[in-house]
Amino acid sequence: MPPSPIRKLVPFAEKAKKRGIHIFHLNIGQPDIHTPQVMMDAIHKIDLKVIEYSHSAGIESYRKKLVGYYEKFDINLSWEDIIITTGGSEAIEIGMMACLNAGDEIIVPEPYYANYNGFSTQADVIVKPIPSSIKSGFALPPIEEFEKAITPKTKAILICNPSNPTGYLYTKEELEILRKIVLKHDLYLFSDEVYREFCYDGREYVSSMHLDGLDQHVVLMDSVSKRYSACGVRIGALISKNKEVMAAALRFAQARLSPPTLGQIAAEAAIDTPETYFEEVHKEYISRRDFVVDSLNKMEGVFCPKPSGAFYCMAELPVDDADKFCQWLLESFEFNNQTVMLAPASGFYSVPELGKHQVRIAYVLNQESLKNAMTCLEEALKVYPGRTI
Amino acid sequence: MPPSPIRKLVPFAEKAKKRGIHIFHLNIGQPDIHTPQVMMDAIHKIDLKVIEYSHSAGIESYRKKLVGYYEKFDINLSWEDIIITTGGSEAIEIGMMACLNAGDEIIVPEPYYANYNGFSTQADVIVKPIPSSIKSGFALPPIEEFEKAITPKTKAILICNPSNPTGYLYTKEELEILRKIVLKHDLYLFSDEVYREFCYDGREYVSSMHLDGLDQHVVLMDSVSKRYSACGVRIGALISKNKEVMAAALRFAQARLSPPTLGQIAAEAAIDTPETYFEEVHKEYISRRDFVVDSLNKMEGVFCPKPSGAFYCMAELPVDDADKFCQWLLESFEFNNQTVMLAPASGFYSVPELGKHQVRIAYVLNQESLKNAMTCLEEALKVYPGRTI
Repeated sequence: MPPSPIRKLVPFAEKAKKRGIHIFHLNIGQPDIHTPQVMMDAIHKIDLKVIEYSHSAGIESYRKKLVGYYEKFDINLSWEDIIITTGGSEAIEIGMMACLNAGDEIIVPEPYYANYNGFSTQADVIVKPIPSSIKSGFALPPIEEFEKAITPKTKAILICNPSNPTGYLYTKEELEILRKIVLKHDLYLFSDEVYREFCYDGREYVSSMHLDGLDQHVVLMDSVSKRYSACGVRIGALISKNKEVMAAALRFAQARLSPPTLGQIAAEAAIDTPETYFEEVHKEYISRRDFVVDSLNKMEGVFCPKPSGAFYCMAELPVDDADKFCQWLLESFEFNNQTVMLAPASGFYSVPELGKHQVRIAYVLNQESLKNAMTCLEEALKVYPGRTI
Repeated sequence: MPPSPIRKLVPFAEKAKKRGIHIFHLNIGQPDIHTPQVMMDAIHKIDLKVIEYSHSAGIESYRKKLVGYYEKFDINLSWEDIIITTGGSEAIEIGMMACLNAGDEIIVPEPYYANYNGFSTQADVIVKPIPSSIKSGFALPPIEEFEKAITPKTKAILICNPSNPTGYLYTKEELEILRKIVLKHDLYLFSDEVYREFCYDGREYVSSMHLDGLDQHVVLMDSVSKRYSACGVRIGALISKNKEVMAAALRFAQARLSPPTLGQIAAEAAIDTPETYFEEVHKEYISRRDFVVDSLNKMEGVFCPKPSGAFYCMAELPVDDADKFCQWLLESFEFNNQTVMLAPASGFYSVPELGKHQVRIAYVLNQESLKNAMTCLEEALKVYPGRTI
């Protein structure tokens, strides 16, 4: 497994820090938003004589309480449709292993979350990317692209909605197109919906679980990491109404014994997070997004579509090579002793060349920091030797 | 991945509970020993605004503190030789993936921890078992057996020391034999040493890390689960001085982002567990072991070698089929409204037939419960229809 383009930058960031330069980290999805107080309170109240393994599928009371959480989004489940996983990462890993065999193919619109590559390598399945374009804001590729990519080995389509890295939020119409392809070719629809809470502009959140007739096809991959800004608890969920899938998934879950007990206790408490928490977070992210996207589009030669979900945006920059540019930002640039770390988009494409002029920006810092970060980027683009226009 | 023989029993146990029967769980390694107070205190004091991802290799202060923990066992490490994992399970999984390629072979003395099968399936490597015998208390098989099993595809030997499921503790001489084979054939030595703290009878604990000239070969797989009776924190470690192995392991660790933050905080605090805790635990397990092993050997037709480590023993029973017997214990037997759940040994052998007359007993309950459990087992053996002598 080769290191990702983001990871390759880490040593350069460490050296910059040693030189005393402050780095604005817009390169990863680690938000600065505070974790809800109900989670911290639950952790402080943990009163166990023995911190035992939980059930391999998770603590029963948590699974039951999650049913109520999903009901609010009109996703109607039985608690046995839910297996608690160690982060969303493990939900993807177990989902792939439970549904697919070695050599099976899985279609993923690109750019896509870089770690899908790692999980598919581990599951020995082949990712078949189909391109979406920055010009359309990364809308779903046309149905013909899917049809062209389907072979007898295709077993699943994987989407991330709202999307990391693009922030794109699929419309009901787009999901209907997916529904038809999935039914026509009898595929699984893997739906990574960990950014469910982050839909903006009054846009409706449509889950793959809302689609008619897909009960036996949809496998939902979820996580509490982003929802409650609690990435470190490592609690996710694999959800499906397909009993065969769940039985196979349970056997993989049993092999690793149990998801983390402490994190589950915190995540169970998190379901009681007051609505006001999300309202505030929502407002904050919308302000951040608007500021970042507007700032980017004001810079000469930069193009950034305004996404309706998650907390990422993708921008096209007037640079010869975004990998080189991101490294240069850390190695050779500073403005007022500050610089910015971005994720080169090459890691989100199967053919790195496709992302050569793009970066992903995670607007996970406070507005003051974002302001300074955007100033840094603007100044950097003015003086970068590999500038193209 | 087929369900293990232990898992197959779960529905029968659930039915027995519904009938109001109390089950003594000697089937799994979930001890009743209390988790050290320093861990609970650390959890109660967690004061984080955001529960963030940790570094993919674990929290730096924890890795540094672990160096001191290992020093006490004369294992001399740099903190960069340690990657924190999500339980010992993930240490095994990542270790296999980092060191081996699809189709590579790994030699494991059997009986062995059943989940090694799951992890090797996931890593696409082939387990080549070589038999150890209950007659010798499951001592290391003779060197000729290893030589016979080695092919050009053999890349590693995996041992568990002290052993789950047998409780066997390898001697210095046995480890020296392994050292020679490993060097002669240039293999990895995967050493699962999660029961390090559980060595009895004044027997010396010898780590694979103590062996001369194996720095580039030994990969230690560790966990805090058993050490501190904290299985639910899901914190383990992958340890090696081989920098190439660690670099590859880190890439797999990065793909799953980070081990659990809350568990790491508890595990870091656990290093300060007072010695008196282990002295008490030690005394308790020795009493339990002596009672269980003596009780078993007093039963007609039962043979149980006395192990020097971990908290398991393997017993040969005068039954036609241990799988059937274990199921019958849950389905058709009760004594004073109680019964006992055991792990049929078939799941610990590559050829289930080899374990047909054996069970694994985890002496993880208090002595009063163990007494009742042994009475149940004795009574059960008297009336079991498939008794062979």
